[in-house]
Amino acid sequence: MNQACENSRIVGCSFSVHPMSDQFVTYIMDSLKEVDTSKVWLHTDDVTTTVRGRMEHVFDVTKAILLHIAKTGVHVAFQGTFSIGCPGDTSGDVYMDESSERLNETKVTGLRLLIAAKFSLYPMGGGDYMDTIYAQIEAMKSKGVEVSPAHYSTRLDGDTHDIFTGLEDVFRETEESGSSHTVMTVTVSANSPSHKETE
Amino acid sequence: MNQACENSRIVGCSFSVHPMSDQFVTYIMDSLKEVDTSKVWLHTDDVTTTVRGRMEHVFDVTKAILLHIAKTGVHVAFQGTFSIGCPGDTSGDVYMDESSERLNETKVTGLRLLIAAKFSLYPMGGGDYMDTIYAQIEAMKSKGVEVSPAHYSTRLDGDTHDIFTGLEDVFRETEESGSSHTVMTVTVSANSPSHKETE
Repeated sequence: MNQACENSRIVGCSFSVHPMSDQFVTYIMDSLKEVDTSKVWLHTDDVTTTVRGRMEHVFDVTKAILLHIAKTGVHVAFQGTFSIGCPGDTSGDVYMDESSERLNETKVTGLRLLIAAKFSLYPMGGGDYMDTIYAQIEAMKSKGVEVSPAHYSTRLDGDTHDIFTGLEDVFRETEESGSSHTVMTVTVSANSPSHKETE
Repeated sequence: MNQACENSRIVGCSFSVHPMSDQFVTYIMDSLKEVDTSKVWLHTDDVTTTVRGRMEHVFDVTKAILLHIAKTGVHVAFQGTFSIGCPGDTSGDVYMDESSERLNETKVTGLRLLIAAKFSLYPMGGGDYMDTIYAQIEAMKSKGVEVSPAHYSTRLDGDTHDIFTGLEDVFRETEESGSSHTVMTVTVSANSPSHKETE
């Protein structure tokens, strides 16, 4: 698949981050101050935040927001729905003209943090969608993260960068395999007291 | 659709609740003490909790857990993925023999709380899935809640009971319309400081 085609459709992510702290607003605002969102369309309301743009920037921004909160050590949950090819949503198409350079990678690349994540892939509109899902779960096993089955999802344990790279790869490969409308849900838990007990 | 058929397939929900407080563990544990989960299969790990059983009990339990936390006034987010017909998951099938009486309804029915929710419906494996989605969004408008478009989802504002009843109806009707595998994601925000500002 060539670059022009790879970048031909806008990606969106509707997500929320939940620092489990009385100071949740401060954690979120401090993180947003550190994240460069200039290459994505961004809209926040009281339930979720939506970012839209080129695939690499949507993953770059969501990972950076999570990492800048998680680096503080607070227990934080992230829940995001990544979408491509959804009929009817066109906001932010102008952001497809941005260059591919990721604006936040340099700043977060030194932040190494083990997280637990669960993801589910939903290739819509096709009858052989389960084959696509199983193929992408297999592919995830080569991304340097621990992959295990979970209920209605696949569990990933590993470094935040490896997990987000794996998720972006899986999402891109599902799109490139011909799925006209792909949805991927991701739930992340960082700095959980449960993790600390088992480490 | 007769009762026997309506209840022929197990429903699951993988969810997490996030009280935005230093005392998040206490809020969750206190809620679980008040919720009767004896009619569902339940498994919790460090990322999500999964419940499986008859459709009415899965919605009964998830609503009750949310309400028992939200009644304290703490800002809490709920994120759940409801699933029916997922190939390969069979845990908890024995719970399909439970009676239909909801165990938590009496205790929570007096808890009236306005929440904001977003839901997305994913009928898998069929080409006309968008028609099903649009029909169910239309149907939601008759459920006594405010319905508005959002990015990759539909926004609902109203009382917790009305919203959960609407979601259960939509999920059941999608299943009964012939979708072999249906997924519905739900994100809820209760007691948000943003809500209080606008009230």
